[in-house]
Amino acid sequence: MLKTSIAPDGREFPLPTEEDNAKERELLVKITKEQRAKGRKIVAVQGLGFVGCVMAAVVADATDNDGNPIYYVHGHQRPSKRSFWKVPVINAGETPVSSSDPEVPEIFQRTVVEKKNFRATSEDSVYGLVDIVVVDIQLDATKPAFGQAEKGYCDITAFREGIRMLGKHINPECMVLVETTVPPGTCEKVVKPILEEEFTKRGIDVTQNPPLVAHSYERVMPGSKYVASIRDFWRVFSGVNQKSIDMCREFLSDVLNVEEFPLTQLDSTNASELSKTMENSYRATNIALTLEWARFAEQIGVDIFKVRDAIRKRKGTHDNLLRPSLGVGGYCLTKDPVLANWAMGALFDLPGELTVAINSVNINDTMPLHTIDLIKKEYNEVKNLKITLLGVSYLENVGDTRHSPSKTLVEFLRKDLARVRAHDPYVEHWDELEEVTVEKDLPAILEGAQVVIFAVGHDQYKNIEPKELVDMCKTRPLIIDCSNFLDDATINKYKGLGCKVRGVGKGHIV
Amino acid sequence: MLKTSIAPDGREFPLPTEEDNAKERELLVKITKEQRAKGRKIVAVQGLGFVGCVMAAVVADATDNDGNPIYYVHGHQRPSKRSFWKVPVINAGETPVSSSDPEVPEIFQRTVVEKKNFRATSEDSVYGLVDIVVVDIQLDATKPAFGQAEKGYCDITAFREGIRMLGKHINPECMVLVETTVPPGTCEKVVKPILEEEFTKRGIDVTQNPPLVAHSYERVMPGSKYVASIRDFWRVFSGVNQKSIDMCREFLSDVLNVEEFPLTQLDSTNASELSKTMENSYRATNIALTLEWARFAEQIGVDIFKVRDAIRKRKGTHDNLLRPSLGVGGYCLTKDPVLANWAMGALFDLPGELTVAINSVNINDTMPLHTIDLIKKEYNEVKNLKITLLGVSYLENVGDTRHSPSKTLVEFLRKDLARVRAHDPYVEHWDELEEVTVEKDLPAILEGAQVVIFAVGHDQYKNIEPKELVDMCKTRPLIIDCSNFLDDATINKYKGLGCKVRGVGKGHIV
Repeated sequence: MLKTSIAPDGREFPLPTEEDNAKERELLVKITKEQRAKGRKIVAVQGLGFVGCVMAAVVADATDNDGNPIYYVHGHQRPSKRSFWKVPVINAGETPVSSSDPEVPEIFQRTVVEKKNFRATSEDSVYGLVDIVVVDIQLDATKPAFGQAEKGYCDITAFREGIRMLGKHINPECMVLVETTVPPGTCEKVVKPILEEEFTKRGIDVTQNPPLVAHSYERVMPGSKYVASIRDFWRVFSGVNQKSIDMCREFLSDVLNVEEFPLTQLDSTNASELSKTMENSYRATNIALTLEWARFAEQIGVDIFKVRDAIRKRKGTHDNLLRPSLGVGGYCLTKDPVLANWAMGALFDLPGELTVAINSVNINDTMPLHTIDLIKKEYNEVKNLKITLLGVSYLENVGDTRHSPSKTLVEFLRKDLARVRAHDPYVEHWDELEEVTVEKDLPAILEGAQVVIFAVGHDQYKNIEPKELVDMCKTRPLIIDCSNFLDDATINKYKGLGCKVRGVGKGHIV
Repeated sequence: MLKTSIAPDGREFPLPTEEDNAKERELLVKITKEQRAKGRKIVAVQGLGFVGCVMAAVVADATDNDGNPIYYVHGHQRPSKRSFWKVPVINAGETPVSSSDPEVPEIFQRTVVEKKNFRATSEDSVYGLVDIVVVDIQLDATKPAFGQAEKGYCDITAFREGIRMLGKHINPECMVLVETTVPPGTCEKVVKPILEEEFTKRGIDVTQNPPLVAHSYERVMPGSKYVASIRDFWRVFSGVNQKSIDMCREFLSDVLNVEEFPLTQLDSTNASELSKTMENSYRATNIALTLEWARFAEQIGVDIFKVRDAIRKRKGTHDNLLRPSLGVGGYCLTKDPVLANWAMGALFDLPGELTVAINSVNINDTMPLHTIDLIKKEYNEVKNLKITLLGVSYLENVGDTRHSPSKTLVEFLRKDLARVRAHDPYVEHWDELEEVTVEKDLPAILEGAQVVIFAVGHDQYKNIEPKELVDMCKTRPLIIDCSNFLDDATINKYKGLGCKVRGVGKGHIV
């Protein structure tokens, strides 16, 4: 039976056979030769995930002063059942990521179909043909116990294999630019040694040809400015030697909007890697602080959101203060402190712990349980309680569900036998919680609800009229507002309709 | 023998006798009557400390549209040996605080001598004569164990006595405005009940005359803009009932620059009190995060200050990130998280802890020990080591030594029998560490030094030429830079002169 890879829209694509691969190898050589003849440098992007696929398109979209593409881009994706579909989808000029950013489909159409300088492949030999590899392999932190981020670690096996594959194929003059968020020390202590080892096996003298390894971190945000968040934003970079630094600077200057957003060079890849993880630890800590104070404020009848506004009046010193909410989700803030904390011991053999950042991850990870506590203040137990959750993504007006705090909330509610229904206008399929169907039909999902949780600030939810919602419920549900989504007038309307309202970080609204 | 109070400049003032007090009482009544006849409202400021004395002058300095003073101000200071001297000093038109702000002597001269609407007294009966009391009594957190802020508590005995004294004297229509940073809940659960109790004892019906209590927190900063930091800056306020809120708003609008820095009203004194302590907890946490990452960075050869600059490029979201240093000092960041954490249990009977903020206080309090670790990387032990400390205040270009991290550093060095000498151009007398003489003579204090610690970023230290310093030492001392005070060129000069250089949060400079 033919193995296939199924795209989110249901289309099935057969995985490549050995015969397909042989043809593909010939084709890659031919294309690359043609593109070199046009004076273009050749880039491979390793991993066509959330960052990789758009970064690949951005690189292909870069032009010289005459408007001609500077690079030809091979996007590389391993031929796994889970992800191979991205290769034919991209090669049809379609985008493999759903996004509210109109630039996303445009840039794929422009580079793949019009300029024809971006193409995806699953064939490893592509790495032997390129001048630059941009590494966008996924690298996760594993937290073996809920609420115990101090036990978290980073399994770098797959990452090491990806780098080893590069070492087996790349030209020694090829620059490997790691964009993946990695534990500090990874370029120096993992990437470089593996490349040296593979080069040496291939008879390359690494004293003459030391591997060229650079690190630069993106600050991508899902949402309506997805492409711009990669291209039109500040970048930090460094390299393991001067040549790597120079090549990296040149490459990033070609493909990013460095006129408006100048590059920041740091002294070493250790510094660049540490900067990324510290940057996100700063945000994670900032949120954790607000969560603890939100719980305190609630209990003494104080609205933490008004307090936050008062504090943020101090521009330049206090205006970064974030807001409490259901919890913290997304790919960065939930794992980056763990990567750094793990690296201290595992890569540098250092004692100690980044206690502020790690404690913050724990507070953030367990925060969704606080919303269950709020429910329990009205209902003694959640067993059999009909609860409707509005929003399962981790960010407003975006369908990204990675590490969403709604997942923790739903899992714990279901464990206590609550009857949870979930809704999200942006989420087709909740990949991380497959047993829960994400509904699109608001009246159907609200009918009979005893509790309605405003979990995410999607505009659609903020705009619901209380009467409309209560009519759909045909009950007088307890309303839980997880992050000040409802203004005082709306809360009063709910109360006027006989609903109780409770809010994370808010007092006086019951 | 006559008891006296000795001013920092050595002048002795006899404490008032009962006879003096009797005369003073008559005088206060007379003055107040005269001032009322001029249409002025009468204010007492309770506590002429760091905030109180300048706040009193700012209130007296407020004028109506015709340039006439709105208020007459009685500054009140208890007749203790430690502090009574402030009364005669202020009444001579002099300032009781040393400051680099030229406005400080000016505002005392203007209000006390020229306008004659500010006068200090030690007589309690003054509170019976006034319309408004501004409470600026000191209120400290006690940390019974070093590095264990979770055991910290707030001894409010003296504060309660101060409030009780008001309750015994004030007119029931008098507004009590608490400016002291207090544990959240203090106005509602301490101030108001004490005033009610004293009013009731005096036969005042508190249902008819509920005490008028407001809270507003200043954001004062020592240094060259000391007066402006009280008058020309955002204020947050609230009150225990509507009348208190209205009176507080009117008063603050009269005396502060609310056109440029509009007031922020919160819903309750709980909210205002929580806001102040959270605001400073935000800063304390921010610094603690940088300290942990600084130690990590150091050990992997990364300069945390360059990383910080890279992160702060993200304006609006990451630019509040603070810098690591010797540690954290001053009156607010070291105690405010403790006040709030203590209030949770002690005033509200709530379980739980503000772990992020409290852990941060511990990290900040113990950070000076890290500088000792840096010394020990060069010298196995500090016993008999000649160490010169440059800077004992907690802030650059300011002589404020309250909770200075230099104190912790010196105490621990002396415990290990190091021979520590300390220098600070701004500090006449180190009140918190009386056994250490703060020298002003740089050559004398540097001679023979084996270690020179740049602890505080006073301009004088940043401008010392390395050759000059080494010549004064007549040694090649180990240079410790506690917060990136020395730029790369200066460090290289020190290295060129044969000195080793180590920096908090910096690698590669040994």
